[in-house]
Amino acid sequence: MNVYSAKVQELCVYEINERDRGSPAYLRLSQKQVNSLGDLVPFSNKIYTGDLQKRLGVTAGLCILIQHVPEKKGDRYEAIYSFYFGDYGHLSVQGPYLTYEDTCLTVTGGTGVFEGVYGTVKLQQLIFPFKLFYTFKLKGIKDLPSELVTKAVTPSPAVEPSPVAKACEPHAVAPNYTN
Amino acid sequence: MNVYSAKVQELCVYEINERDRGSPAYLRLSQKQVNSLGDLVPFSNKIYTGDLQKRLGVTAGLCILIQHVPEKKGDRYEAIYSFYFGDYGHLSVQGPYLTYEDTCLTVTGGTGVFEGVYGTVKLQQLIFPFKLFYTFKLKGIKDLPSELVTKAVTPSPAVEPSPVAKACEPHAVAPNYTN
Amino acid sequence: MNVYSAKVQELCVYEINERDRGSPAYLRLSQKQVNSLGDLVPFSNKIYTGDLQKRLGVTAGLCILIQHVPEKKGDRYEAIYSFYFGDYGHLSVQGPYLTYEDTCLTVTGGTGVFEGVYGTVKLQQLIFPFKLFYTFKLKGIKDLPSELVTKAVTPSPAVEPSPVAKACEPHAVAPNYTN
Repeated sequence: MNVYSAKVQELCVYEINERDRGSPAYLRLSQKQVNSLGDLVPFSNKIYTGDLQKRLGVTAGLCILIQHVPEKKGDRYEAIYSFYFGDYGHLSVQGPYLTYEDTCLTVTGGTGVFEGVYGTVKLQQLIFPFKLFYTFKLKGIKDLPSELVTKAVTPSPAVEPSPVAKACEPHAVAPNYTN
Repeated sequence: MNVYSAKVQELCVYEINERDRGSPAYLRLSQKQVNSLGDLVPFSNKIYTGDLQKRLGVTAGLCILIQHVPEKKGDRYEAIYSFYFGDYGHLSVQGPYLTYEDTCLTVTGGTGVFEGVYGTVKLQQLIFPFKLFYTFKLKGIKDLPSELVTKAVTPSPAVEPSPVAKACEPHAVAPNYTN
Repeated sequence: MNVYSAKVQELCVYEINERDRGSPAYLRLSQKQVNSLGDLVPFSNKIYTGDLQKRLGVTAGLCILIQHVPEKKGDRYEAIYSFYFGDYGHLSVQGPYLTYEDTCLTVTGGTGVFEGVYGTVKLQQLIFPFKLFYTFKLKGIKDLPSELVTKAVTPSPAVEPSPVAKACEPHAVAPNYTN
């Protein structure tokens, strides 16, 4: 038997900026009026299970402003960040973040239950830049814990984490959820 | 059959700074006269097929100044960036960029036709920092589209993209080439 | 036979800041008094074999301040960097760096003897931020050179590289060690 599993496992998570982490930090290092190459945007938001019933942890990383795209009224970023899932470990990703359309990033690695992972993740923006939905397609790992693999709420701008998840009540968080 | 292909596929691309993207943005955050640790260099250049007949897309990412090397009259950077190929997807890489000699970086992942990729890439500098030639050695993926796998023009400082590729004429670009 | 080896190879290295590389460069871009999101920390330190008898090279990369954690009197960083081993190649990693406890990062790729690598690395801090011990668990690669796989000195704040390794004497360095 091959230790590499070709099986694709889907994992959905919501990333929500609840405006309580001082994120994002828009560093206007280009010193230009309009967003320009040279600007850097470190960020960290909260993540929840796809069914919005449990708080998992946070995202953490850096967006590099590549280009302002006036005809789309938006920007192209290069994004390099990780998703933290408490005791379950983390996933690192890299790729395009466009403020005006969905993108696909690559999963560059992971730890814990994600050790040996490879794959991709679809990024859907619901409310810029406060609410995003991610669909990971993961390979190379054992079966994910059932706590992570939930039936996702259909993505829409109106979705909200359940009050217990938002309050981080003990039954509504991943073990040692990252905060 | 193993989904992981051990077959090595070679992919050559040219990266050219045509000085029309405001790149690179040299951020002298060290506040020192000479390039020093603390300086950061976001960048984005154009990429072409190895035969210089088609525009593929852009690079996008960050060089971190690690060390000025006076005896080489150059600098060591840590480079973290992606290559964008329009509808074909992207490749992410990380490793050393030395302004005074060729280096080898690792491919950390990819999307689209590069999903599941791993491997390395040789970076050859032709004209610092405006013209570079890359030779990717890729594994773990299906056969690359023939449009990408061209017979490369021998790297030299004099090489130029074909006028039609430079002009992004419809027959001289990858599908939905990244711009 | 599968080219991917499922065999786990352990590699131990010490990272030591000898305060002679101008590292780290703490960039207080948040412009806040306390460490905050927005601060960036490029760094580069020296690395030695686990037995401290040979200088291997350097680390090089970026720590992104994510969060000050007052109750731990420390900080959470997102770390993206590489380990350079001279002619042996390099390893790239990404993940959490907490100034107050050990963490696990993912290996996102490698070159040279590390080509095709995947796995994880445990980061143990011995003296913040000057002395760290790493235990890599690597897969997907051929047997590592015996020069790299040494019996590690038990990590403690008191460990020091051997004088010959610190002096980079020819018999106490990796081939073309990175400096």
